[in-house]
Amino acid sequence: MEERTEIANLGEFGLIEHLTKNIELQNASTILGVGDDAAVIDHFGKQTVITTDLLLEGVHFDLMYSPLKHLGYKAVVVNLSDIYAMNATPTHITMSIGISNRFSVEALNEFYEGVYFACEKYGVDLVGGDTSSSLKGLVISVTAIGEVAPNAFVKRSTAQKGDLICVSGELGGAFLGLTLMEREKKIYQENPQVQPDLENESYIVGRLLKPEARKDIIEFFEKNNIVPTSMMDVSDGISSEILHLCKQANLGAVVYEEKIPIADDSRKAAYKFGLDPTVCALNGGEDYELIFTLKQEDYDKITLNEEISVIGYTTEIEEGIKLHTKGGNKFNITAQGWNAFQQ
Amino acid sequence: MEERTEIANLGEFGLIEHLTKNIELQNASTILGVGDDAAVIDHFGKQTVITTDLLLEGVHFDLMYSPLKHLGYKAVVVNLSDIYAMNATPTHITMSIGISNRFSVEALNEFYEGVYFACEKYGVDLVGGDTSSSLKGLVISVTAIGEVAPNAFVKRSTAQKGDLICVSGELGGAFLGLTLMEREKKIYQENPQVQPDLENESYIVGRLLKPEARKDIIEFFEKNNIVPTSMMDVSDGISSEILHLCKQANLGAVVYEEKIPIADDSRKAAYKFGLDPTVCALNGGEDYELIFTLKQEDYDKITLNEEISVIGYTTEIEEGIKLHTKGGNKFNITAQGWNAFQQ
Repeated sequence: MEERTEIANLGEFGLIEHLTKNIELQNASTILGVGDDAAVIDHFGKQTVITTDLLLEGVHFDLMYSPLKHLGYKAVVVNLSDIYAMNATPTHITMSIGISNRFSVEALNEFYEGVYFACEKYGVDLVGGDTSSSLKGLVISVTAIGEVAPNAFVKRSTAQKGDLICVSGELGGAFLGLTLMEREKKIYQENPQVQPDLENESYIVGRLLKPEARKDIIEFFEKNNIVPTSMMDVSDGISSEILHLCKQANLGAVVYEEKIPIADDSRKAAYKFGLDPTVCALNGGEDYELIFTLKQEDYDKITLNEEISVIGYTTEIEEGIKLHTKGGNKFNITAQGWNAFQQ
Repeated sequence: MEERTEIANLGEFGLIEHLTKNIELQNASTILGVGDDAAVIDHFGKQTVITTDLLLEGVHFDLMYSPLKHLGYKAVVVNLSDIYAMNATPTHITMSIGISNRFSVEALNEFYEGVYFACEKYGVDLVGGDTSSSLKGLVISVTAIGEVAPNAFVKRSTAQKGDLICVSGELGGAFLGLTLMEREKKIYQENPQVQPDLENESYIVGRLLKPEARKDIIEFFEKNNIVPTSMMDVSDGISSEILHLCKQANLGAVVYEEKIPIADDSRKAAYKFGLDPTVCALNGGEDYELIFTLKQEDYDKITLNEEISVIGYTTEIEEGIKLHTKGGNKFNITAQGWNAFQQ
């Protein structure tokens, strides 16, 4: 039988000590970490970038199909993704959790295993947090801090007319993973004897449960002297993000359906569920890729990187924000693009 | 009738825009505030101090007697208190909230009125956050960032033998406010016709619902060239905090009951409730005062400040951590001092 240690046996200070005793600090800038009123960070002449996310059980994740280790990992990664989206390097996080008595110390260990795994992989230090009881449900709040050379950060609002619109990686997978998991959950709830059928679906399940932040893209930019003219991460789906980038810069856009990168496994899953893969890619969300605009003269530099796709370009605002489909049609891209497509 | 605007009418982006449109940035270090993937902060050669708190409805606050405006104010202030407790100056906060559909836009306006009021009073900029729906209950997560001259921060663990133990302000008031509010809540629940009897209790109610952080004490230190040897803020009660400071520095302590600062209004309330005012001050918590240790040679400097009380001194660890009572008895101070006293 699995061990179950009640959190009450450790007490709050015991719990914090238990969860943080193995932290190994990786950044020279971490002057003081967990255990005081606050942490202290040095800067060596850089600027600090800061972002925060609140994740609530039943709203942002479902523990029925999110293993706690993956959840801990993902909670960190989605915040790091926001730091990379500023063209900055994440260095520190704080992690606060609210937990009901349904969680054991062993369950929290699993969660923090994922947290520390992400910290190690991305080279960030956990320097603070808050551990609290909750009446119901798991509450996770993460703040990520990063650094950037003075004024080298990249905003959402600074695209120029004629810039290339680019995305990293492949889109739609996380949404298809969610669709699969929700379907399997329903089947299980109707008949708990049926085992989930996740064979051959590890790609989309992985995209949902264990996303990665695009550290490699930011490093590629630096190595090749590329500075995007604007950038953000893909959390709501590129339809919504393209609208953001264009509206803030007062621009229009042309996006080519055939250029939108979609993995073969995502296409297959979409067809299986009777969904249009392009719609999944445009509106799916949670891919945690980067979407950015580039000066046309940087085109040659990015062709080196197979992880970057040019999907369109920015135009005058009067031309609208358009998707050119494979069939030769033109649609307005909307934040509720899903509905527009289903008509 | 009061207006009630549903949050769904604004949408997430509309809500964020609504809540942040009146932010006036106060710090030159704020390069980029709300509205991008992350905020950007400059440093001008200082170190950054960071702390975070998670506040959950039903655990940390009760909306039955916590007005939303006060709650917004307090959520900010308790985090600033942690920054001051590092001998640092708070400069920025992020504020994340999870809200159920029971809250209207007007209710959120009230909450943010308190948030912005605290930001203005303490000179900090709100630079980010996350707004999310919650299935049930209000969730508040605040991260505060401050700055300090390189290595001028003060830790909890660095007291020396023979140091003076000092506290700011007066203790026990917040706990007595909580006792009063819980009593009135119970009366109201048993008989909703009975109006709450809060007359003459504004001091203790204020200590509970609208605490202040001790900015003035940190400014006094700087002006008078005082650097405490160790410091933390009083959130759990000074019994618990004295144990922290002593254990981390491997020291004992003598604390004099008669030196513990307690407001007359708190004393009166304690007697009314049949409580020992000293026990309330030792174990009450949520006072958000500062407790710190000082070299004896700094004694003359602090006598200038009526807001600072010397309550004892640190000793060899072998002498234990003792309270000398007015009656001439000596008790061990324990984190569960309450029980020890009630025997």
